[in-house]
Amino acid sequence: MNANALKYRLIGKPLRSSELQAQRYGVLWGLPVLSSDAISSVAYATEEILLVLVPVLGMAAYTPMLGVAGVIIGLLFMLILCYRQVIDAYPQGGGAYSVARENLGRIPSLIAASGLIIGYMLTIAVSSCSGAAAIVSAIPQVEPLRVPLIVLFILLLTVGNLRGLRESSKAFGLPTYFFVASMLAMIAIGAVKAALGQVEPAEQAAQLSQTTGDLTLFLFLHAFSSGCSALTGVEAISNSVPNFSDPSRRNAKVTLVALGLIVLCIFGGSCALAMLYHAAPADNLTVIAQIAAGVFGSDSIGFYLIQTTTALILLLAANTAYNGLPQLMSLLAQDSFLPKRFADKGSRLVYSHGIVFASTFAIVLVVAFNGDTHLLIPLYAAGVFLSFTLAQGGMVIHWRRKRCRSWMRKALINGAGAAVTALVFAIIVSSNFLAGAWISLLAIGCAAWAMNAIFHHYQNVKKALGLNDNERAKRLLLAEAPKARIIIPAYAINKPFIKTLNYARGLSDNIEVYHVKVSAQATRRFKADYQKLEISIPLVIEKAPYRNVNEVLLDHIDEKLGELEKHETLTIVIPQLVTKIWQMPLHNQTTLMLESALVGRRNVAMVTIPYLIDS
Amino acid sequence: MNANALKYRLIGKPLRSSELQAQRYGVLWGLPVLSSDAISSVAYATEEILLVLVPVLGMAAYTPMLGVAGVIIGLLFMLILCYRQVIDAYPQGGGAYSVARENLGRIPSLIAASGLIIGYMLTIAVSSCSGAAAIVSAIPQVEPLRVPLIVLFILLLTVGNLRGLRESSKAFGLPTYFFVASMLAMIAIGAVKAALGQVEPAEQAAQLSQTTGDLTLFLFLHAFSSGCSALTGVEAISNSVPNFSDPSRRNAKVTLVALGLIVLCIFGGSCALAMLYHAAPADNLTVIAQIAAGVFGSDSIGFYLIQTTTALILLLAANTAYNGLPQLMSLLAQDSFLPKRFADKGSRLVYSHGIVFASTFAIVLVVAFNGDTHLLIPLYAAGVFLSFTLAQGGMVIHWRRKRCRSWMRKALINGAGAAVTALVFAIIVSSNFLAGAWISLLAIGCAAWAMNAIFHHYQNVKKALGLNDNERAKRLLLAEAPKARIIIPAYAINKPFIKTLNYARGLSDNIEVYHVKVSAQATRRFKADYQKLEISIPLVIEKAPYRNVNEVLLDHIDEKLGELEKHETLTIVIPQLVTKIWQMPLHNQTTLMLESALVGRRNVAMVTIPYLIDS
Repeated sequence: MNANALKYRLIGKPLRSSELQAQRYGVLWGLPVLSSDAISSVAYATEEILLVLVPVLGMAAYTPMLGVAGVIIGLLFMLILCYRQVIDAYPQGGGAYSVARENLGRIPSLIAASGLIIGYMLTIAVSSCSGAAAIVSAIPQVEPLRVPLIVLFILLLTVGNLRGLRESSKAFGLPTYFFVASMLAMIAIGAVKAALGQVEPAEQAAQLSQTTGDLTLFLFLHAFSSGCSALTGVEAISNSVPNFSDPSRRNAKVTLVALGLIVLCIFGGSCALAMLYHAAPADNLTVIAQIAAGVFGSDSIGFYLIQTTTALILLLAANTAYNGLPQLMSLLAQDSFLPKRFADKGSRLVYSHGIVFASTFAIVLVVAFNGDTHLLIPLYAAGVFLSFTLAQGGMVIHWRRKRCRSWMRKALINGAGAAVTALVFAIIVSSNFLAGAWISLLAIGCAAWAMNAIFHHYQNVKKALGLNDNERAKRLLLAEAPKARIIIPAYAINKPFIKTLNYARGLSDNIEVYHVKVSAQATRRFKADYQKLEISIPLVIEKAPYRNVNEVLLDHIDEKLGELEKHETLTIVIPQLVTKIWQMPLHNQTTLMLESALVGRRNVAMVTIPYLIDS
Repeated sequence: MNANALKYRLIGKPLRSSELQAQRYGVLWGLPVLSSDAISSVAYATEEILLVLVPVLGMAAYTPMLGVAGVIIGLLFMLILCYRQVIDAYPQGGGAYSVARENLGRIPSLIAASGLIIGYMLTIAVSSCSGAAAIVSAIPQVEPLRVPLIVLFILLLTVGNLRGLRESSKAFGLPTYFFVASMLAMIAIGAVKAALGQVEPAEQAAQLSQTTGDLTLFLFLHAFSSGCSALTGVEAISNSVPNFSDPSRRNAKVTLVALGLIVLCIFGGSCALAMLYHAAPADNLTVIAQIAAGVFGSDSIGFYLIQTTTALILLLAANTAYNGLPQLMSLLAQDSFLPKRFADKGSRLVYSHGIVFASTFAIVLVVAFNGDTHLLIPLYAAGVFLSFTLAQGGMVIHWRRKRCRSWMRKALINGAGAAVTALVFAIIVSSNFLAGAWISLLAIGCAAWAMNAIFHHYQNVKKALGLNDNERAKRLLLAEAPKARIIIPAYAINKPFIKTLNYARGLSDNIEVYHVKVSAQATRRFKADYQKLEISIPLVIEKAPYRNVNEVLLDHIDEKLGELEKHETLTIVIPQLVTKIWQMPLHNQTTLMLESALVGRRNVAMVTIPYLIDS
């Protein structure tokens, strides 16, 4: 009961299944909760682009950066166009997985799902690492505590999400608006200052003189693929349509467009400011922090405000994954691709198993990559763009099958989306393969294989257990159930033995008491005590010359199993001493041994009769 | 079966209980097996004495060293005299523990036993560490592998001892004789060379000029207490009297005297040579190695022969503990102070559990103290001398009670032994308390407390389970055993359910099928399928509005338990899907959950009906 009290304290009292409808949100709260990933990626996407360009081009990096940012924003609006059609076609959510499942078949849908799962887990890891980087930029002293801090944030998110959607959305929604507001303010003030010619370049600009090469196509594409991590949040909205209040489709579509406009303003704006203020990647000071220092002054309230809201939105961006991943996993579980429990809602009406799963893997990633955003980025976008491609490809098939009004136009839009995202996927994989994309691809392959294996296992079990028709079930029901055959293994005549004997006599008349002889003296005594009971139940004694009592008992059971008639089951009835847990090593755990040994045998049932020792 | 084949390969085929008599040894093999500890301690005792004296006295350390060695040899013969009387009085073995148990009561005997147990485990650790030091002296390159090497040796000893006594004694006996022979040869040649004036002092003699203090009583006693580690093997022979072939008492006593003479010669001789050759403690080169280098030359066959035989006897000295400790633990288990399994002989007729226990703790000690003999020595002798004192004190009481022929003389000898060993114990503890003796005392206290707690637990269980007289047993046997009341928890009508139903109908007519409703749809289907079976067994359906199926089921069981009449037992019959072990997470483990939840409840028996899935 104490464990339950602690659980209620942590995640709140259980909610009734009938309270489900109430746990949804409109555009106002749905936007910040589901879009914080995409919006927050501004905090690292600009930096990731510069990280590729600056070491090679130096001062000349800013013009191609604007080009890269422009292409990414164009891609974003293309994805939004495509995903509006997905929301229309699949209002039950599921995004890439549902679409691929219905239109492309099992294996492609599992690959899409694996890509999304890996992507979601990386969202949690990358966002919290990047959030920690914003904190370190403001307070460099916390650098040694970075990894434990990240883990702590993930644990807080876990608890928040286990408590349930509504409370999460309010707590986690406000910081998104704060971030957007403070970024817009920074961009506006920065632009005005630049127009007035009051710009001081950031300190890091010193290194910009080191130019080592020219702008090549490969360099441009590499920078582009790093910046594509900004687009990883888009599918969350289309996966979560059922979480919107009615009219859920319309709300989801409005949210999607709002997201696009916000990203356009602040991603575009911050890229422009990075150019104007000559911000360049450096240790322990992010590009956004350099811009904020340039606009507001490096120890101003404005600087700390930007760092605070950046850190908050990044940490909460991880929350996007907590909305998308458990829902996706529950869909997969319903379709028998994951253990059934992922489809069960916990006491607070959220998919608790999926939430805990996501947190566990994200923490493993953070610790394995030492909390470094730059190391995680190459793993990130590949999976997401793979699932984008499969979703858009699936949509083309969908429209072709449906042949609804203006299906050609719709198929064309999604087809173009599929082609572009496939190209981007190829660019991401080829420019980041050795840097980490291979890990993602391997993980996606393994996950898809495992889910397929799980599917086959459930199919086999269903076939093995199922009763196709009712006649079959009735035929299997025996008209006359055979009486039980019972063996009672015994080593001493004591109270638990008598209790067991009484119990067994209530079940059947076909009982045998079975004793293994190791010491002649002990067996003599057992026999004498047994005879004094004056009961007619036969006593069978067998020798264990090698003192292997359990093996002799098992051999006897196997022999008896061989003698069973059809439909008969052998029943082993055995007393089990129940002591406090730390006293268990003081007693022979024959019951446990028998249980694990008998587990592979058919037609043998085991009954344990507990005997409690109070002291 | 494959696991068994591997086991047979490793420790040999099982032996019949009737082969027990054959597994014993005479003086010829008993001496090397049981005395290797005491004999081998020459390899470190001289060094431990010098380690205390040289840093203070420099060149002047050798004369007091001879004094210390003389006192220790005197003490050895006093102990031999005392333990000859112990062998006569307690031919069943057990040494200090048996004597204290019979004459001083439970608590003192447990303290003596704990002292011996700790001592035995330290024998394994110290001897193998010191053996590794001898190897490092000969081949300094292996220094980085020291700790893994020690662990490997302990594992080899474990396997050897699990194979059984006879084979062990032959394999482990010869090196003792090799060591004694090579040491005697070294002493003789060294003495002759010294007499002819051909002595070159060891290189380490350089540091002997650094004198920092005078010989004080404390210094002398500290050196003495370090040297007392040489006396730790003596009790092994008196504990192992039953392992000698008949006449076992006489054989044991002869072995004890032979041990004394051997130690006299080689401990005395090597101390004298250390003085003549000015050997002094140094890193990675033992005192014995320095003497051997002085006598034979530092790269001679003689030098390597001494190192080899020293290493071998030290590693095999650890074997002494494998003869004494499991036997002592089996005695303690028979007296209900340790889990019963320590009293069971394994497939090779040795106390396998004790052997594995000893090895585990010794490995922990070696790793914790980084395989350093000098760090372990302060922990070592305290426990052994505590049990010596209790044994000799107990012997005084024994003779006073017996009042046999010349009992006064015998009591006087043991009384003197008790007084002297008590004094030595006080010296050891006071001069080594902070250096490690506190760890030993704490461990002894904890072990004694734990064994006493185990004893009380077994007494309580015996009282709770026992049937004092046969009338009681017959009264508890019910004339008419009540029919079983059965609950079958069910979630779907499938083959395992039908099998379970058939089985339950063979046990009783009082059956209830119990279903927990989570989803209205699933329950509707279940109900329809159940009704189509057309059986008269009642179906009970309860709702789980919070989706906590298991809790609802447990509440129902508790309710039913409350309705039981006297002597009735509630029986839960549940199908259990048996899959391959890695498929288990894919299925709800209701059986496991129920089992652990029901474990604290009286009057409820649980039956699992296995249903095997082949694929």
